[in-house]
Amino acid sequence: HVRVTRALRPIFLVDCRYCGAVRRNLRQIFQSLPPFIDILLLLLFFMVIFAILGKNYFNTLENSLVSLFVLLTTANFPDVMMPAYSKNRWSCVFFIVYLSIELYFIMNLLLAVVFDTFNDVEKMKFKSLLLHKRSAIDHAFQLLVSRQRPMGVSLKQFDGLMRFYRPRMSARDRFLTYKALNTSGAPMLSLQDFYKFYEVTGLKWKARRSGEHWFDDLPHTTFLIFKGINLLVKSKAFQYAMYVVVAINGVWILVETYRLNKGVQNLIYLFTSTSTNSASVLSLSVYGVEVLLKISGLGPMAYFSSGWNLFDFSVTVFAFLGLIALAFNMEPFYFIVVLRTLQLLRLFKIKLRYRNVLDTMFELFPRMASLGLTLIIFYYSFAIVGMEFFADVVYPNCCNTSTVADSYRQINITFGNKTVLEEGYYYLNNFNNILSSFVTLFELTVVNNWYITMEGVTSMTSHWSRLYFMTFYIVTMVVMTIIVAFILDAFVFRMNYSRKNREPLDNPEDENGIVFEVEVSRDEALATLELYKQTCLGLSSLSSLQGVLQAMDRSGHSSLVYQGRRSRTKSDLSMKMYEEEIQEWYAEYSRENLPQLDQSLARELDSPGSEPSPFPEPQLNSQTGPHGIN
Amino acid sequence: HVRVTRALRPIFLVDCRYCGAVRRNLRQIFQSLPPFIDILLLLLFFMVIFAILGKNYFNTLENSLVSLFVLLTTANFPDVMMPAYSKNRWSCVFFIVYLSIELYFIMNLLLAVVFDTFNDVEKMKFKSLLLHKRSAIDHAFQLLVSRQRPMGVSLKQFDGLMRFYRPRMSARDRFLTYKALNTSGAPMLSLQDFYKFYEVTGLKWKARRSGEHWFDDLPHTTFLIFKGINLLVKSKAFQYAMYVVVAINGVWILVETYRLNKGVQNLIYLFTSTSTNSASVLSLSVYGVEVLLKISGLGPMAYFSSGWNLFDFSVTVFAFLGLIALAFNMEPFYFIVVLRTLQLLRLFKIKLRYRNVLDTMFELFPRMASLGLTLIIFYYSFAIVGMEFFADVVYPNCCNTSTVADSYRQINITFGNKTVLEEGYYYLNNFNNILSSFVTLFELTVVNNWYITMEGVTSMTSHWSRLYFMTFYIVTMVVMTIIVAFILDAFVFRMNYSRKNREPLDNPEDENGIVFEVEVSRDEALATLELYKQTCLGLSSLSSLQGVLQAMDRSGHSSLVYQGRRSRTKSDLSMKMYEEEIQEWYAEYSRENLPQLDQSLARELDSPGSEPSPFPEPQLNSQTGPHGIN
Repeated sequence: HVRVTRALRPIFLVDCRYCGAVRRNLRQIFQSLPPFIDILLLLLFFMVIFAILGKNYFNTLENSLVSLFVLLTTANFPDVMMPAYSKNRWSCVFFIVYLSIELYFIMNLLLAVVFDTFNDVEKMKFKSLLLHKRSAIDHAFQLLVSRQRPMGVSLKQFDGLMRFYRPRMSARDRFLTYKALNTSGAPMLSLQDFYKFYEVTGLKWKARRSGEHWFDDLPHTTFLIFKGINLLVKSKAFQYAMYVVVAINGVWILVETYRLNKGVQNLIYLFTSTSTNSASVLSLSVYGVEVLLKISGLGPMAYFSSGWNLFDFSVTVFAFLGLIALAFNMEPFYFIVVLRTLQLLRLFKIKLRYRNVLDTMFELFPRMASLGLTLIIFYYSFAIVGMEFFADVVYPNCCNTSTVADSYRQINITFGNKTVLEEGYYYLNNFNNILSSFVTLFELTVVNNWYITMEGVTSMTSHWSRLYFMTFYIVTMVVMTIIVAFILDAFVFRMNYSRKNREPLDNPEDENGIVFEVEVSRDEALATLELYKQTCLGLSSLSSLQGVLQAMDRSGHSSLVYQGRRSRTKSDLSMKMYEEEIQEWYAEYSRENLPQLDQSLARELDSPGSEPSPFPEPQLNSQTGPHGIN
Repeated sequence: HVRVTRALRPIFLVDCRYCGAVRRNLRQIFQSLPPFIDILLLLLFFMVIFAILGKNYFNTLENSLVSLFVLLTTANFPDVMMPAYSKNRWSCVFFIVYLSIELYFIMNLLLAVVFDTFNDVEKMKFKSLLLHKRSAIDHAFQLLVSRQRPMGVSLKQFDGLMRFYRPRMSARDRFLTYKALNTSGAPMLSLQDFYKFYEVTGLKWKARRSGEHWFDDLPHTTFLIFKGINLLVKSKAFQYAMYVVVAINGVWILVETYRLNKGVQNLIYLFTSTSTNSASVLSLSVYGVEVLLKISGLGPMAYFSSGWNLFDFSVTVFAFLGLIALAFNMEPFYFIVVLRTLQLLRLFKIKLRYRNVLDTMFELFPRMASLGLTLIIFYYSFAIVGMEFFADVVYPNCCNTSTVADSYRQINITFGNKTVLEEGYYYLNNFNNILSSFVTLFELTVVNNWYITMEGVTSMTSHWSRLYFMTFYIVTMVVMTIIVAFILDAFVFRMNYSRKNREPLDNPEDENGIVFEVEVSRDEALATLELYKQTCLGLSSLSSLQGVLQAMDRSGHSSLVYQGRRSRTKSDLSMKMYEEEIQEWYAEYSRENLPQLDQSLARELDSPGSEPSPFPEPQLNSQTGPHGIN
């Protein structure tokens, strides 16, 4: 019996907590499917017309259809035309017209349609999330305002909300969040203040460092030395000097590679030759000194918070490891040596466009990884089906009845006294085990010569096997189109953003993400402490507030500034990008929803009973409380 | 001696009047080049790193580089991996990583960068054109306002301008243009009125037809018949009935094709078999009746103004021609018979998305054609160079020293008493004459197996020949990327437009293009005639105005409505798309330019001298006058 249900196993895999991104990708793929299928039908329609029209060039209609399907992937291109072309030179017109319409027009239209749907779905998702948040805030505000203060939310009420919404947040952070929202200085939050709730609620709070540099508190002489290093590593001259070193090093590597280009296996030799070695030791020491200077000049925190510095650091460390590996002749690690060339990538930092491209690359990485995972899940399903039906069907010298027999041949040919093994190798592209299947499927994804594998398997099984390969082609086409659309979208979005704001995304301010600053005076801190004591919270939750007072005592200032930080998300960028449209959406939303909100608000305030209770004391130890809505 | 300068001949070709679109394409290609080259460098950088890293798999560094370059096009994909893969299964990781980074990431980034540049260039071009027009209008207004009427332009001044700007425009049209601009009803044009100048100036003016249908003036009985036909062909039921006919016809063709699928050359038989023939005669008569009904119901003018109707009409006519060709057994025209299947394309009209796609297709056609022409010009240059260097270098059984000798083989193999010609055919892909060169270059454009041609030619000449093929690959990559970016842009623009305006672009109102209506009363026409007589124009230019009065006399109305029409251009769509941004651009422009304009305006009005003269009498017969600025 055939056990194809195993192919459905990935469904269980996807339905776990860690596969959220994969589920999102699958949803996106399914949302893009209807327009995709529409254009696919158009594609197939023209294919059928051309198959009927070009039947003279192929023997049967089935042949004609299969050949034109493969031609769509260009995998059989000049070959499929050659016999007809050798008979009549004008027959090339048929193939050229077919390819121009199908490959160069409709296939691009396919990409356009998917890209467009993708774009639209992303924007609609953003819009609905935004309006959901606004509606949540409206409702929360309505529940929180009291009869005494119908226009705003007091700290007491807000604190009750936060204890429910984020049970693990400390009392200090709850207070600081309230302060961050409260821009007017009034003793309560207006609805306008409250609308910023989702921007502020994820911040990590920290007392602002008093000084600018990490070495400000050191003795004067040391301070001057570090200040000098700091100015040095921040100077343009230092930067360009490093670029020059990298460039010279790069040229050196290339020259050496050409000079010692003496056949196989000289790679190790190349990187162990004395001249290269001394040069690489030299350049590596320069890089090492640079890393040390930067770390000491900027401080470890500032240094490692930049992606580019992290990249420099890891490449330099790898190069050192490679040098050690060479010194001890550890062959398996020789590939680390070659990573040294990645240093050259630093040169690309000079130009803004490369910075944009490489930043986009880093930014895309998590999404690309999840798309890769999605692809692997499809691979897995197809691999299971392939192993079930096609395991062990191809082997050396099989497929003699097909037109691709040559590619599966493995024979010894004797020329005089010399025996040469002529190999077609394609029997290696089989479905014998899961790893071979994955490699075979990757080859099918790359598309070139995929029909050799298809025809080989088909000749050993039945011609229904083609269905498997064609289905796989279409599925990977969908996923690949989504990947292209995704890269396009991310890149174009980023470029438009930096154009709109006339600043590159990677300027220092942006690198720090979103920053809010709140100043807390001694009196305020004391008043809040009193308030919290009244609401009878446990002492443990008060300690964080008492910490604030202690910090004030230590520093001797009467007020302290706290900074709340979080990294910039796609949603923040979208907020800026769609600024005008967002105002329209809000206006539309208000027209539809606010009247009824106002009414229910009025009803609530009219209803008898005292001030609507602040939230009841939440069970801080309970695991069932809501942990935040994202 | 080598005559490669012939390859530069297309430069003269491009520099002619009819190649404006090609020049625009070339400009766009050159504008996209800098970002393109940037990403190309990144691509080559990774290629070099992988070439050094993977030298073990290839013999020399040159081999390694060439193989990885070809691998980038996937043309040698599984083959280049197979020898290493057969030795060590894990070597596939190298190739998979290389393809993932280079092909699936950076190549897509290349498309993204070109698409983004393309988009931005289009928008900037639109913006600068728009601001130029506004500045032209500002200056013209300044020149036209007189001391007596500092706030506006009178008909007299406006007429003077138009006689200069459009010498061939009739007096009536100049007057109607003035009326179309003058929305306030005041006796002069304000600056705000004048800003619409470029929207109104290209209109074609016609008296509005009194009735709705072409048959309104026919006798009552005939009118009723045509009215009935009109209602019938406009009804949903009629439309869907036609779809059903088309669908049945399509199914019939497919079934017959499969049923009679008996090998080569039965195509003619298929389309001449009795059952098919009677079916096709039946369906064709249905289509014919439909065409006649529609023409009579809608009137020929309305019928042929729709692109879809034109398509229906021509397909039906072709099918009739095919039937006649069959009846007289004219074999060379059999391909017309197959065009009958194009009728099925009508089914795609049902769905909005297909209408959008197909409309975009029709809209793109002129641009695609000019892009195709651009490509052909590149082909021509490369063909000349190719013919100069590679003419007659490949022939049957050549290239024995290369790895692709098999593809050039042409030998007779004898199995027992049967002799089989084994042909590689690739010697047909040569540069012996211009036509062969073009076909060879198209094959190189499609990319698949292009390295066989490259290696064949290289083995018969020097390895510097590879430079030619690689350069060609990169050039076509640029052009193809532009084509993809262009299709993407056009489609996404169209979809965004119809989304923004919540109406498909192809609704009847839009199909009519831009329409302005102006009502002219008898008194106005007389007054204008008087004014024109005063300015001493020749009688010939007054006849068009007298025509208006005569038309009023004939119809017996005291006023006449004129309609000005023109087709909707991309600029009109852009105006709607970028509505908000345009306001910003204008505001920015006013801040920068208006103060100085106001000053010069004030200076002008203060300067001594009478009313600034209306334009001097233009020489209507002179051929050197400006014919309009576009």
